Amino acid sequence: MSANLKRSESITIMDSIQSFIHDAVGPKKLGKPGTFRIETDSFGRLEVPADKYYGAFTERSRKNFDIGGNTELMPIQVIRALAILKKAAADANREFGLDEKLADHIIKAAEEVIGGKLDDHFPLVVWQTGSGTQTNMNVNEVIANRANEIMGGKLGSKIPIHPNDHVNKSQSSNDTFPTAMHVAIALDIRDCLLPGLQQLHDALSTKAEEFNDIIKIGRTHTQDATPLTLGQEFSSYVQQMANSIVRIQVTLPRLYELAAGGTAVGTGLNTHIGFAEKVAENISKYTDLPFVTAPNKFEALAASDALVEVSGALNGVACSIMKIANDIRFLGSGPRCGLGELELPENEPGSSIMPGKINPTQCEALTMIAAQVMGNHVAVTVGGSNGHFELNVFRPMMVRNVLQSVRLLGDGCKSFATKCVSGIKPNTDRIVAFLQDSLMLVTALNPHIGYDNSAKIAKNAHIKGITLKESAIELELLTEEQFDEWVKPENMLGPQ
Amino acid sequence: MSANLKRSESITIMDSIQSFIHDAVGPKKLGKPGTFRIETDSFGRLEVPADKYYGAFTERSRKNFDIGGNTELMPIQVIRALAILKKAAADANREFGLDEKLADHIIKAAEEVIGGKLDDHFPLVVWQTGSGTQTNMNVNEVIANRANEIMGGKLGSKIPIHPNDHVNKSQSSNDTFPTAMHVAIALDIRDCLLPGLQQLHDALSTKAEEFNDIIKIGRTHTQDATPLTLGQEFSSYVQQMANSIVRIQVTLPRLYELAAGGTAVGTGLNTHIGFAEKVAENISKYTDLPFVTAPNKFEALAASDALVEVSGALNGVACSIMKIANDIRFLGSGPRCGLGELELPENEPGSSIMPGKINPTQCEALTMIAAQVMGNHVAVTVGGSNGHFELNVFRPMMVRNVLQSVRLLGDGCKSFATKCVSGIKPNTDRIVAFLQDSLMLVTALNPHIGYDNSAKIAKNAHIKGITLKESAIELELLTEEQFDEWVKPENMLGPQ
Amino acid sequence: MSANLKRSESITIMDSIQSFIHDAVGPKKLGKPGTFRIETDSFGRLEVPADKYYGAFTERSRKNFDIGGNTELMPIQVIRALAILKKAAADANREFGLDEKLADHIIKAAEEVIGGKLDDHFPLVVWQTGSGTQTNMNVNEVIANRANEIMGGKLGSKIPIHPNDHVNKSQSSNDTFPTAMHVAIALDIRDCLLPGLQQLHDALSTKAEEFNDIIKIGRTHTQDATPLTLGQEFSSYVQQMANSIVRIQVTLPRLYELAAGGTAVGTGLNTHIGFAEKVAENISKYTDLPFVTAPNKFEALAASDALVEVSGALNGVACSIMKIANDIRFLGSGPRCGLGELELPENEPGSSIMPGKINPTQCEALTMIAAQVMGNHVAVTVGGSNGHFELNVFRPMMVRNVLQSVRLLGDGCKSFATKCVSGIKPNTDRIVAFLQDSLMLVTALNPHIGYDNSAKIAKNAHIKGITLKESAIELELLTEEQFDEWVKPENMLGPQ
Amino acid sequence: MSANLKRSESITIMDSIQSFIHDAVGPKKLGKPGTFRIETDSFGRLEVPADKYYGAFTERSRKNFDIGGNTELMPIQVIRALAILKKAAADANREFGLDEKLADHIIKAAEEVIGGKLDDHFPLVVWQTGSGTQTNMNVNEVIANRANEIMGGKLGSKIPIHPNDHVNKSQSSNDTFPTAMHVAIALDIRDCLLPGLQQLHDALSTKAEEFNDIIKIGRTHTQDATPLTLGQEFSSYVQQMANSIVRIQVTLPRLYELAAGGTAVGTGLNTHIGFAEKVAENISKYTDLPFVTAPNKFEALAASDALVEVSGALNGVACSIMKIANDIRFLGSGPRCGLGELELPENEPGSSIMPGKINPTQCEALTMIAAQVMGNHVAVTVGGSNGHFELNVFRPMMVRNVLQSVRLLGDGCKSFATKCVSGIKPNTDRIVAFLQDSLMLVTALNPHIGYDNSAKIAKNAHIKGITLKESAIELELLTEEQFDEWVKPENMLGPQ
Repeated sequence: MSANLKRSESITIMDSIQSFIHDAVGPKKLGKPGTFRIETDSFGRLEVPADKYYGAFTERSRKNFDIGGNTELMPIQVIRALAILKKAAADANREFGLDEKLADHIIKAAEEVIGGKLDDHFPLVVWQTGSGTQTNMNVNEVIANRANEIMGGKLGSKIPIHPNDHVNKSQSSNDTFPTAMHVAIALDIRDCLLPGLQQLHDALSTKAEEFNDIIKIGRTHTQDATPLTLGQEFSSYVQQMANSIVRIQVTLPRLYELAAGGTAVGTGLNTHIGFAEKVAENISKYTDLPFVTAPNKFEALAASDALVEVSGALNGVACSIMKIANDIRFLGSGPRCGLGELELPENEPGSSIMPGKINPTQCEALTMIAAQVMGNHVAVTVGGSNGHFELNVFRPMMVRNVLQSVRLLGDGCKSFATKCVSGIKPNTDRIVAFLQDSLMLVTALNPHIGYDNSAKIAKNAHIKGITLKESAIELELLTEEQFDEWVKPENMLGPQ
Repeated sequence: MSANLKRSESITIMDSIQSFIHDAVGPKKLGKPGTFRIETDSFGRLEVPADKYYGAFTERSRKNFDIGGNTELMPIQVIRALAILKKAAADANREFGLDEKLADHIIKAAEEVIGGKLDDHFPLVVWQTGSGTQTNMNVNEVIANRANEIMGGKLGSKIPIHPNDHVNKSQSSNDTFPTAMHVAIALDIRDCLLPGLQQLHDALSTKAEEFNDIIKIGRTHTQDATPLTLGQEFSSYVQQMANSIVRIQVTLPRLYELAAGGTAVGTGLNTHIGFAEKVAENISKYTDLPFVTAPNKFEALAASDALVEVSGALNGVACSIMKIANDIRFLGSGPRCGLGELELPENEPGSSIMPGKINPTQCEALTMIAAQVMGNHVAVTVGGSNGHFELNVFRPMMVRNVLQSVRLLGDGCKSFATKCVSGIKPNTDRIVAFLQDSLMLVTALNPHIGYDNSAKIAKNAHIKGITLKESAIELELLTEEQFDEWVKPENMLGPQ
Repeated sequence: MSANLKRSESITIMDSIQSFIHDAVGPKKLGKPGTFRIETDSFGRLEVPADKYYGAFTERSRKNFDIGGNTELMPIQVIRALAILKKAAADANREFGLDEKLADHIIKAAEEVIGGKLDDHFPLVVWQTGSGTQTNMNVNEVIANRANEIMGGKLGSKIPIHPNDHVNKSQSSNDTFPTAMHVAIALDIRDCLLPGLQQLHDALSTKAEEFNDIIKIGRTHTQDATPLTLGQEFSSYVQQMANSIVRIQVTLPRLYELAAGGTAVGTGLNTHIGFAEKVAENISKYTDLPFVTAPNKFEALAASDALVEVSGALNGVACSIMKIANDIRFLGSGPRCGLGELELPENEPGSSIMPGKINPTQCEALTMIAAQVMGNHVAVTVGGSNGHFELNVFRPMMVRNVLQSVRLLGDGCKSFATKCVSGIKPNTDRIVAFLQDSLMLVTALNPHIGYDNSAKIAKNAHIKGITLKESAIELELLTEEQFDEWVKPENMLGPQ
Repeated sequence: MSANLKRSESITIMDSIQSFIHDAVGPKKLGKPGTFRIETDSFGRLEVPADKYYGAFTERSRKNFDIGGNTELMPIQVIRALAILKKAAADANREFGLDEKLADHIIKAAEEVIGGKLDDHFPLVVWQTGSGTQTNMNVNEVIANRANEIMGGKLGSKIPIHPNDHVNKSQSSNDTFPTAMHVAIALDIRDCLLPGLQQLHDALSTKAEEFNDIIKIGRTHTQDATPLTLGQEFSSYVQQMANSIVRIQVTLPRLYELAAGGTAVGTGLNTHIGFAEKVAENISKYTDLPFVTAPNKFEALAASDALVEVSGALNGVACSIMKIANDIRFLGSGPRCGLGELELPENEPGSSIMPGKINPTQCEALTMIAAQVMGNHVAVTVGGSNGHFELNVFRPMMVRNVLQSVRLLGDGCKSFATKCVSGIKPNTDRIVAFLQDSLMLVTALNPHIGYDNSAKIAKNAHIKGITLKESAIELELLTEEQFDEWVKPENMLGPQ
């Protein structure tokens, strides 16, 4: 499309095109773009766009929550997780009396949602009712209409499949939405976050081994300290990433607990005995994750503590990667006026004004992500602490923040691993020069001449700008031979 | 378009359609979708999509920062603010020697960006370099290519207009990006936030007046307290909103300071004397906001304190609206088993399982927004505190969070005002019943019989479940006549 | 002492008294209050108060960090944990060559610190060097001087025991301080936090059982919903507390890892092989907690991720208790104009002006604690994310915040359990009245007449102010008999 | 006192001594330590320590809130501010009918509290009722008892002065506590924070001037950038501090608004017309700060938004000082293996193991403070957002966090100014070496040969390890003369 059309012009053109395609593709029941059909809910009749599957409940939300626009949509992962639940529930309901044919078609339509075929039919924003009811109903309506369509029914008729009585059977938003939250987050943790953390762990680990024999000066308080190897320094990052993975994992058991089966307030009203367990079992089967039914449905509805817990672990990961990325950019600072011990991969020009400038941009993206995750965690904390009675109503906000944190950390770590860490090279000239220059090798003398005498040597060298050895000999605190024997960086890398 | 096409299928169809339109519309230089042209930067040659105006710098960022995908794009407001700056700079550069024709065409292309005609040409995510350089260059490249196209030049040739030498003339990302942050946020504060706050203020104020004569029981510690009018209760919210507006306004002077003219590190290298002032003047003229050139460009680049400050004010507004929305939902709780002093508008069905249920959904959206703003503020704080030396590099993250907070608060307050507050009605039966029942009217007796005797009356009434008057008489602490004279709710609404 | 003496006057008097006691008690080497002795460090000679055991290093910190005064002292738990470590290290050093007699006396003096006998000799504030070096040296100096005193040596002589060469042998602040942080926090978690959480869990659990048969109306979105038992409602809180305990416990393995043996930068320079393990073993023995030596000392020094992780769990606990305390105060609101389903214990008068007022003060203390813990967590997060190279230098701040959170949550939960939860009684009259009045019992009709018909009944009842049954019959959607059979609260408490 | 007495032993000794003094000093009515007298409140009789002035209300709180112990006391500034208010109220009440003699003695006792003579009589912790009622009553009781004592009355008799009826006359905790919060914070801002910020501003400003002619390399993205003077670099810090002061000041108008006169719920029940204004006028007179009566008392009681606002400004200051302190420690890093452009004052030995090590400890204290302030701000935000109806009940927590932030920032900036900034010296050798070595001077060539050619020169120099000039000549892009004319650091410090 011509690039200098306004978005609004584009939309008009697109409408015509969609209309054209609509006529050509048939025999679907969806109407032409720009036209409307009547849908109903318990509030009455309402016009909805004829080319959408959603119904009156969804349309009311669209009208009532004009907040933030297109950039604030409910994450698609939540939609799909709800559809996974609808499928699982329809299958379970079949066991408890739901007409086989209705169940099959609910499942069929749900699978289209899961497969991403109906993404355009979920227009609601995060900033709606805090229970996610409107999004749950959006899914119910889309599945009902689409299933009815397949079965030859009329859109908006709720016949033979009713969004509440059949798609939502044995369910309430109050148990489906938290279930979908857990499912969506658990999937993204498995599919995006943990692989990303592992990839960064592995990239750092490869470097730690590669740098195993490079002795360098340590820095504490940002000041020169005793030596270690560059491999040891990187091993710290490796340990942080290994711990990060564990920190996520230990929170998962609570995330695997599903609220489904609690319905309106946790009692399971309008469900059959065994429904909750069957739904969890189905979801576990579909997703290959060890979901179980929550041991206490009242807690599962009234609180979203599991999200706060997971978010707390994500916050911890953010701290770890902030530290790692900061270290790497400072160790790679320069090229001529910084610490310059590391050479980072040069991925792109760094400046619009300074020619030839290269910047540690992957570190910057990662540290910005860390800051975002810390902020998201506070939003999740505030939401998690403000539930009342039988229901927490900060859920759409909470799930969105956790999903964003999960995704950004996963993608960010992967990007950092492949675009930065893997390409890091040591600047050995610089590393050796610093090592030779340092005064803190004096620490090795403590066991021989005591802290106070060692301090005299270091201070004397510092003031006079001479080497440690020169200072030691000048102060007659030890002989050159003793110095050479005792002050060997290669002997300062571990306990004796 | 047929709704059960996958998104990927849709995209393919759209590409064909765009290709068709492309051929028809001409004589633009943009190529067909799916084809590529060569662009160059200081790193060398690179294929970019032929139907986009951006160049090699942008494309490298797209490849290097595969983080978060389409939901994580740089806010369009930042793009447009950068274009405003490019226009202002081109105009200023003309005074300092930039070829008139080049300047005119830079301005022309910039105006297309400002007008939203080229929105599709800005594909970069927030999680890029922390200076926003890649987005600055994205704007430079799009403007250069588009301007060259208008002038009959070849895309990617950088002739006659070069993205760095001409579009970015007298600029660096390090001063343009913070300038754009300030401009974008200031515009959204004026156009979205302040009107939203004012609208909520006014809606509450109307109610405060309307409810002026309704005496009700007060509640402190969530427990019954002395009476006040419902209008007085709402006047508290009105004051909070009035203060909220002031809290935003007092931060604006720092937000109106623009970094433009500082270039790379704040010195203004490669600018002319007067350039900074002229740019600020131009931007002020274009936007009708009192922007000025920052008094110290080093600070304007090295820190983003003004955003932290504004975000702090937004955080304060979030606290205010959280309180108001919480009050209103609790006062409107019921309909039969809650406090029920207020009747909130019934906007939509509230439950997928509980028929006839109505929920305070606008309160929920608003409190979720409040939580988000508090979280965003922490992200901004972490970013703001972590600048180093001559440049803060948490900027894309910071501006996105502040813009989101501004927009959500603005839209949320407007929605809350129109969909909730305006329709609130008092449930006077309930209000009167509570008032008559309350024990805390006893407070009016303090000046007459002292705190300790008053306490005896209240405790006795509480234990025996009798009225205050009955208790007072039973304890022989005052006569019925005295009670009736001293305990009049209508006399308890202000100082005597 | 006369209460209207100024603090300064008190101090003068106290000095005289202490002087008197000093003379009487002897033959200690400590000097008289108000007098000074000379101590030395590598910076030279310095006067220190003669009646204190600390030396020059400590005194310099006192002079250099005049920040916050007495309310900002390093937590005494950190001092004692450092002393535990000094004891463990002296014992280990004995194995690796430290003179037996020196080791014994270091241990002896350390035990006095552990026992709290020397609490007055640790005057340093939190706001000192970020490694806690000054507090580590404070402990070294006090132990050295006190041990020397016992051995007949001269205070300040560092003979025979030197604070660095002997007390700090095989140690650095960089490994001792993080070790002490872990030890101090782990002890307080075991001794204060977990018992407090358990006590609250148990108190809630007792109530959940006690309230098992009380059917009440549920509330979602703060609005009337379907019924549950009061016991079920409390079971949600019980589950939250049970989860809280688990959430703390799963973080402990990383907290049990000790940095000791890493010395300056993690290499273990100036230690012997086996020292780290022996120290961890000793500390584990002394404390009866499963401490182990950290698998990677570089990580243990460079980061304080374990504290961020623990703090994240504490933050989660804070969310849980905020929810519980909020619920209880709202359910207990009244006594006459609130929800009033619960009667909370009346512990004290509630108001200085409103006679007879009782407030849910334990809920208030607990929710304030929750807010504090959330704030502390952000401070810990910011500190944890800002380490550089081989050492995190936000440690005194971090440990203080975590210790405060641990203590406040532990004490707060215990107080809440004993002073509030244990005394809660149901107001059954109110509970029954609400239940009978509610419209949401209509939900039980869904399986019989469908959601849409049920909604009609509820809405009709709401508008006309009649009962559900009256409405159902009026609308001829079911018979009175059907209504009575289908709408039974006692059948709405679980799946069928 | 002998240092190896346990604290408990000390306390016993002190009790005896106090008892001795008590007998000697008379004729005060306070009893001997360890003995008790009976006090009463509306709950009944209660034993309180005979040597304390507080009464039953206070004692109940002590018993009911065993949370955190001595380190968690209500800040003494709040106590004193309450006493200021009691004095102001007594004076105002005199105008409205309070017996002259009673008023005089309330004022007399209040002045003793203000003067710090009775500090030991305020034993309550922060974690009490969220309105601060118990601390308000603590003050009422101490003043009443002390005033009665002076007047010859009996402690605990409440005669002639009653804590509620006279000391608390025309007041409620609900208006007194927020008034005291504002007064205490405003005083500490004036007396500690603003002087501290100003002192740091001035110290930095002195250095900025001193360093005016030292040209150094700039750093953006932590990488080498174009030059600036060290004075310019410091001018950024000066601007941050100047802005910090303004950021605090613009919030003060809301802080100067006092709730006093609102009594229980904001109506001013039991006050006289003019009382609120008179109290504010008195407080303003006593404190020399422009306090006024709050324009809307309902808001002043129901919310604590002014504290959130002030805390937001403090949070902004924290970001500024974090940046400044981080810069200074990195610029001062070394002494041999860091950037080393600055030499920081050497205040104390830095390490317990590394002899001669010096650390940027003042930077560390300041950055820890910054982290604490950010955390405190979140606690304040959570508290501020969670008020309900006519009263916010997170007040003791909120005021404590704000007071701590104010004090730590004030003291911390002062300490940083005097112990660090004032002593900073430039390491000109290092500065010059870096400047000569840098590649980013190439930026000056942009206007002459364009960005792309300049980039070639820089990249060529970087790859080959040669100087810019060598590279430029080698690439034949300009002559040596041109290079020398165009690339002059001294011409790169401002616009041309």
